[in-house]
Amino acid sequence: MKVLIIGTGLIGGSFSLSILRAVSDYEIGGWDLDEENLNEAVKRGIIDRKFESLEISLTWPDLIILATPVSAIRQLLPKILDLINEDQIVVDFGSTKSSICDDVMNHPKRSRFIAAHPIAGTEYSGPEAAFPSLYDGKVMIICEAQKTANEAIQSFEKLCAISNMRLVYMEAKSHDIHLAYISHLSHVIAFSLSHVVLDKEKDGDLILELAGSGFASTVRLAKSDPKMWTPILLDNSEPVIKSIDELVQKLEKVKQMIQEKRGDGLFDFLSEGREIRKILN
Amino acid sequence: MKVLIIGTGLIGGSFSLSILRAVSDYEIGGWDLDEENLNEAVKRGIIDRKFESLEISLTWPDLIILATPVSAIRQLLPKILDLINEDQIVVDFGSTKSSICDDVMNHPKRSRFIAAHPIAGTEYSGPEAAFPSLYDGKVMIICEAQKTANEAIQSFEKLCAISNMRLVYMEAKSHDIHLAYISHLSHVIAFSLSHVVLDKEKDGDLILELAGSGFASTVRLAKSDPKMWTPILLDNSEPVIKSIDELVQKLEKVKQMIQEKRGDGLFDFLSEGREIRKILN
Repeated sequence: MKVLIIGTGLIGGSFSLSILRAVSDYEIGGWDLDEENLNEAVKRGIIDRKFESLEISLTWPDLIILATPVSAIRQLLPKILDLINEDQIVVDFGSTKSSICDDVMNHPKRSRFIAAHPIAGTEYSGPEAAFPSLYDGKVMIICEAQKTANEAIQSFEKLCAISNMRLVYMEAKSHDIHLAYISHLSHVIAFSLSHVVLDKEKDGDLILELAGSGFASTVRLAKSDPKMWTPILLDNSEPVIKSIDELVQKLEKVKQMIQEKRGDGLFDFLSEGREIRKILN
Repeated sequence: MKVLIIGTGLIGGSFSLSILRAVSDYEIGGWDLDEENLNEAVKRGIIDRKFESLEISLTWPDLIILATPVSAIRQLLPKILDLINEDQIVVDFGSTKSSICDDVMNHPKRSRFIAAHPIAGTEYSGPEAAFPSLYDGKVMIICEAQKTANEAIQSFEKLCAISNMRLVYMEAKSHDIHLAYISHLSHVIAFSLSHVVLDKEKDGDLILELAGSGFASTVRLAKSDPKMWTPILLDNSEPVIKSIDELVQKLEKVKQMIQEKRGDGLFDFLSEGREIRKILN
């Protein structure tokens, strides 16, 4: 089987590596808007071959994976669906799903498209950051599977099994709401916290000395790539805004309890929040 | 040298273990309000001996370390200073320093007291969580060192060197402001984020499946002990409230840029926040 990865960074590159380490009858090609990324991917053995242009690359594969920022997925996906034939499959790995699904809902080749989202990543990016075990045991979400041809879904499910991933099926709207709360909000927090601390601590030395206090963990996601995260936040605006509002309400509640020296209320609030340890151990 | 640890949990217990692994001429005793914690500390070899009461324990050591929640430190410290003699030393390991220093600023034995704060910890607590390498390479902050007798400071500095710690000297007010931003705010965020997500995701299964998306790191500190964190937040109320206000401003700014679809502004905001990676790698 021939798989084309469009966007050979952390997400696409790691998926490729997870397949190449496991099986020998898959050939993986790549294309990336950034020539340097593409060459780096070849050099690191992330892809078997590279293509000179998107148009040329599309004639080659059985299955195409779009692993670019969400904004580029939305530009590329309708064009790619126009160009592929009825046997090829296109999968997108974007972190939002509603707008991407809506874009192509009436496309005559909608049944060749799979809306997916691998729930894994690190705060790093680019082919340098890719590694074969990124997806081991992690979840691949597939949205609106009922709109895709069965045989296409089965091909992709087989690929996910090779990558050691578990499958979860969800509607696109539901995906976007859950991800706003569990992923996107955490990124908004990390970038905002980073701003607050950098404003205060002009001299970075103290941050480094005091970072043992938990800051490093809370702010970690602020190392993530703005090229990837700007379009995610804009694309999933409504649930993300709602989640920010709800966080601000909680922060104001904590603030008020501190102001009013309500030790019992504060203790209860922290104890209830601590329940998360029963889920994440 | 005889060291008494009051509060034989993660912080006091790990300090004890870091000394016991390195040298043989220190004897370490312990006392804890919680009889179970104290027995567990003996069982785990965290302390060489336990005492039946605080009063009895105080006649024994050369140096006393107060590693209890801040509220208990504030209750105990003045009493302990009343009871010790002119050769004994008392150190507190509380996460706030101004109120503790102010409590004893006019005590006749002020020069026997060292206000310290080891910048290390985990989200776990109790003697079960203690381990000897917790403080390796970490910072011990000493506040208002000029108010302590030189020979007492030197004894404690020697102890910190044995624990592989680096020393940083700071005024108490300055300590509390820096810690509000770099540590306390991160804890407020984690507990608040946990509330938002637990409110939304009544069924914990999805949290677990989607946690690979960065949530686990951002919320990690919400596993911390409310018995420790309630008094810290109340004690350091003014800087903590200010830091919450500044965070809310940043969150509102992000929200507004998303609402107004200001991609350039959002990209710049994330890029500026990402500068933290130059400090924390």
